Amino acid sequence: MPSDHALLVRAVLDEYGELASRGMSRYLEGLRFPELAGLLADYPSRGGRLLRASLCIASARAFGASVREAIQSAISLELMHNAFLVHDDVEDESEERRGRPALHVLHGVPIAINAGDGLAVMSLEPLIHNRLILGPRLAFRVFGEAQRMACEAIEGQTLELKWRDENHVELRAEDYLRMVLKKTCWYTTIYPCRVGALIGSRDTLELDHFVRFGFFLGAAFQIQDDLLNLTGDHRRYGKELLGDIREGKRTLMLIHLLRVAPDAIRRRLRQLLALPRRERGDEQVRWIRRVMDENGSIDYARQTANALAGAAAFEFKGAFARAGASRDRDFIEALPYWMLERA
Amino acid sequence: MPSDHALLVRAVLDEYGELASRGMSRYLEGLRFPELAGLLADYPSRGGRLLRASLCIASARAFGASVREAIQSAISLELMHNAFLVHDDVEDESEERRGRPALHVLHGVPIAINAGDGLAVMSLEPLIHNRLILGPRLAFRVFGEAQRMACEAIEGQTLELKWRDENHVELRAEDYLRMVLKKTCWYTTIYPCRVGALIGSRDTLELDHFVRFGFFLGAAFQIQDDLLNLTGDHRRYGKELLGDIREGKRTLMLIHLLRVAPDAIRRRLRQLLALPRRERGDEQVRWIRRVMDENGSIDYARQTANALAGAAAFEFKGAFARAGASRDRDFIEALPYWMLERA
Repeated sequence: MPSDHALLVRAVLDEYGELASRGMSRYLEGLRFPELAGLLADYPSRGGRLLRASLCIASARAFGASVREAIQSAISLELMHNAFLVHDDVEDESEERRGRPALHVLHGVPIAINAGDGLAVMSLEPLIHNRLILGPRLAFRVFGEAQRMACEAIEGQTLELKWRDENHVELRAEDYLRMVLKKTCWYTTIYPCRVGALIGSRDTLELDHFVRFGFFLGAAFQIQDDLLNLTGDHRRYGKELLGDIREGKRTLMLIHLLRVAPDAIRRRLRQLLALPRRERGDEQVRWIRRVMDENGSIDYARQTANALAGAAAFEFKGAFARAGASRDRDFIEALPYWMLERA
Repeated sequence: MPSDHALLVRAVLDEYGELASRGMSRYLEGLRFPELAGLLADYPSRGGRLLRASLCIASARAFGASVREAIQSAISLELMHNAFLVHDDVEDESEERRGRPALHVLHGVPIAINAGDGLAVMSLEPLIHNRLILGPRLAFRVFGEAQRMACEAIEGQTLELKWRDENHVELRAEDYLRMVLKKTCWYTTIYPCRVGALIGSRDTLELDHFVRFGFFLGAAFQIQDDLLNLTGDHRRYGKELLGDIREGKRTLMLIHLLRVAPDAIRRRLRQLLALPRRERGDEQVRWIRRVMDENGSIDYARQTANALAGAAAFEFKGAFARAGASRDRDFIEALPYWMLERA
């Protein structure tokens, strides 16, 4: 039976997610260019939980804004998220996304790169409309936050690609957490809280208070997501299981394994990771999965995600101290617990 | 001996280009992330004539603005241009850019896609700084123009990729001109004039007056550029000659050839164009180049570029009627003539 916080989180995700989803559709249907419209609408139309939009709206409301004041920023963020997904899938040679073939598998790499660019450009349109709702000064502050967020995401992606392409095998948990701070946390959790608070408080709060909460929450989320790639249910997960291992992605589990495994296993691992993706066969992928289990790497990552979620629950109190009691505040407070439960 | 307008154009390009180039370097050096900074600075550091930045500054000054009021928009545009180049080179499998290997040839496709994204995100930073110089209202207007421009470029790229990937062989000159309007003209000539006039007039001019001038000028520029790929000097051109033919790019010459060539040649052409890029060998590429000559396709494109430049010279008078006499106005007036001379 789902817990109380799981029920609350689901109810809010359903409600705000629906608003953001309809908003995205409106922008994409507004494209006068039929050749592009279908391509851009593909990933957004496949669903997704719209966590980022919901967190942005909830944070804004918790600090006193209306849905109307927050929705454009939430829509923009989800469009940007879909832009990242399209390019990530090309860069990682992923085969599936949300239960269907990845965009580049359907249309080829050139069209997919261009479609990702198109989604990124579309994500700016709601930020332009913010001007009419928030006034030019506050709308510009949101635009600045969005630019910073995109910059962080690209820096994080740079690190992750570099580690994989240059076959780094001496990484530490600290390296991983720095990469995840940039690649995942900033746009998934930190930015939605910051922009929500910015809009809700009309720029009277210190936004850096949200970095620690968002970092702990986002890192727990990413580790949990990577665990689901190893242990999840394909139908619910929507991506090829064990795809991260095949890709050579530097997950916390792989980084742990590369540090603690006996020498013979480490040597074998380094050789396998040095291969191009398509030369890591099913058997080798399953072997890596098995030695992760045998060397406690899965347990280690699970414990780390737990500890991070606990730290997020603690940081919540400080970050949202000035938000009065509300369902939106309760939703945000419940997120660390919900994150660990989604399996 | 260079003509008077060639001398003027070169002098202005040198002066404004240097300002924009230094501005780009300042932004890129400001990146605190060493893993990314070098990648983003690569294409901008290879030179380029910075026509777009110069046209933007000249248009702004012609309508009464200072360099300081226009420079951020000019820098942003050049960063966006470099972002387009990086992704275009991946999408077209180009080997060279500005006399050196393309970014994806040096670092692989994933890193190049991410670097293009990074340049696009960096291009937003000067637009944020515009607020302090132009005030939030006018700065927002520029941001809106920039978003529209990027949207046009992506739509144009969608068309061109679609034609090539789906091997369209029944295109007409009108199709080509529509594609070039979006893919090239909007960001190369229309947007710099519009944004310059917007800043210079403090939003008191009808910007649609600049669409026809920019369209004729930009289309002449693109056709001339495609001609240089067939007939130019490799060292000055900086890209692999005949690369457009190898890629199967739908240039005006190829579109003309596909319409006028005798049936046997057309059939052979369609077969060759249906091949993947790497299967079109040197001999086949040279054959296509030769039949272009024999069927008057090169001459046809040259005449079209001439006619378009003439139309641009005519449209200039209306578009810049409200700009007083100045070196900046003279520079813009000289551009159609200069375009045809650069060989």
